[in-house]
Amino acid sequence: MKQLKFYFSKTSLSSNDLAAKLQGFLMSQLSKEYADFLHEQETNPYSQFVLNESSYQVWVVNLLTEQACEEMQPILLELERIDLESYSEKLIVEKLEVRQLPVSQLIELFNSEEQQETFTIQLLTPTSFKVAGEYVIFPTVRLLFQSLMQKYSRLYPELNRFDEELLDYLVQHSKITSYHLQTHYFSVHRKKLPAFKGKLTIKLHGASTLRSFVRMLLAFGEYSGVGMKTSMGMGGMKIEERKT
Amino acid sequence: MKQLKFYFSKTSLSSNDLAAKLQGFLMSQLSKEYADFLHEQETNPYSQFVLNESSYQVWVVNLLTEQACEEMQPILLELERIDLESYSEKLIVEKLEVRQLPVSQLIELFNSEEQQETFTIQLLTPTSFKVAGEYVIFPTVRLLFQSLMQKYSRLYPELNRFDEELLDYLVQHSKITSYHLQTHYFSVHRKKLPAFKGKLTIKLHGASTLRSFVRMLLAFGEYSGVGMKTSMGMGGMKIEERKT
Repeated sequence: MKQLKFYFSKTSLSSNDLAAKLQGFLMSQLSKEYADFLHEQETNPYSQFVLNESSYQVWVVNLLTEQACEEMQPILLELERIDLESYSEKLIVEKLEVRQLPVSQLIELFNSEEQQETFTIQLLTPTSFKVAGEYVIFPTVRLLFQSLMQKYSRLYPELNRFDEELLDYLVQHSKITSYHLQTHYFSVHRKKLPAFKGKLTIKLHGASTLRSFVRMLLAFGEYSGVGMKTSMGMGGMKIEERKT
Repeated sequence: MKQLKFYFSKTSLSSNDLAAKLQGFLMSQLSKEYADFLHEQETNPYSQFVLNESSYQVWVVNLLTEQACEEMQPILLELERIDLESYSEKLIVEKLEVRQLPVSQLIELFNSEEQQETFTIQLLTPTSFKVAGEYVIFPTVRLLFQSLMQKYSRLYPELNRFDEELLDYLVQHSKITSYHLQTHYFSVHRKKLPAFKGKLTIKLHGASTLRSFVRMLLAFGEYSGVGMKTSMGMGGMKIEERKT
């Protein structure tokens, strides 16, 4: 998996609007075949969102599969400026950062002995879940882990099958112990979706394999995002480093 | 119902600790008979909490029944300074504010045609609910309304019986549409109870009697507080005035 971060001077667009436009731009750069392929996927092999960071707007694009890297990375690496259809100013790429998490390293995380019992997750962009047709604007460990497990098993079916019992076990052995969250409505295609952002801490109790599994899921989540519409700018997440 | 607000110069105590000490002080001022009576109540006919307001700490004491007013108001109105057992500095009452909400006015709220469909509630002090032995640190409309309806029916049994069907109806016709909340652990008797504070907005849809009922419940809630341990400093709430 690859993560590309493009730094632009701040535009007059909100991060929500800029993410929507950049999503359109990204699709326009792909081969028709690959764009068509993406449209058919239940889980997109990429995610993207925009952050405001002091004087920059940062476009974060995550490529989640080998194929997504092959198809999209060459195009992305060549970008020096971006002409958005419905925005007059050019976006100049002032800085580009690339980091990667090979799948082998994910597996290593799962096989290593994880000591950490509490994990703090920053939900960097508006995050939401849909349950039985309703948007859910409060997180639960079930919704968070279910989303990550589903994305992981859909993108890496050869490594992982979605396991309902494992999810139940995870839910029974974890708990949100603190949070600081607020709602943020996110515009997608003229609809305003109820969502929330901020941070939350999950405490695990139980076997160390559980901790390792969660560590792996969250590391994956930094690339995949969590919840719905992660290709539209929603659900960008990050593990907060522990203060030592 | 009466609300007394005592303004003290800021102490070195947290609002949590000061509320605990003031609760002890308050009990020590009552007649033994009335203190014993209070100990037997499932729902206390008073609530109290402490707020930090610029250079003041404000002690808010709510007297919820006629009897509580008779027993406690004369003692409270006479306070000019407070000697806490385990705190060396005297608390000087620099300002006292009294407001009241007669029960007749509550009933009037219920009988009037309420137009407002959305209500924003500030949870001023850490708020928590206990469900099946577990602390719940995310609000739901059910938990909020259930708590207020229970307190109201216990304190005013002649006006109101707790009605499970009405609660169900209320829950079906209301929704938390936005919030900004964070967890705060609240110390009670050396235990740290998980709780949260901040604000949330509830939107109602349905008949105007429902809106009137909610308006009444929330007006009551400004005095009773919401959730657990409202006599220890938790669950202090306020309806946020609408910006016009």
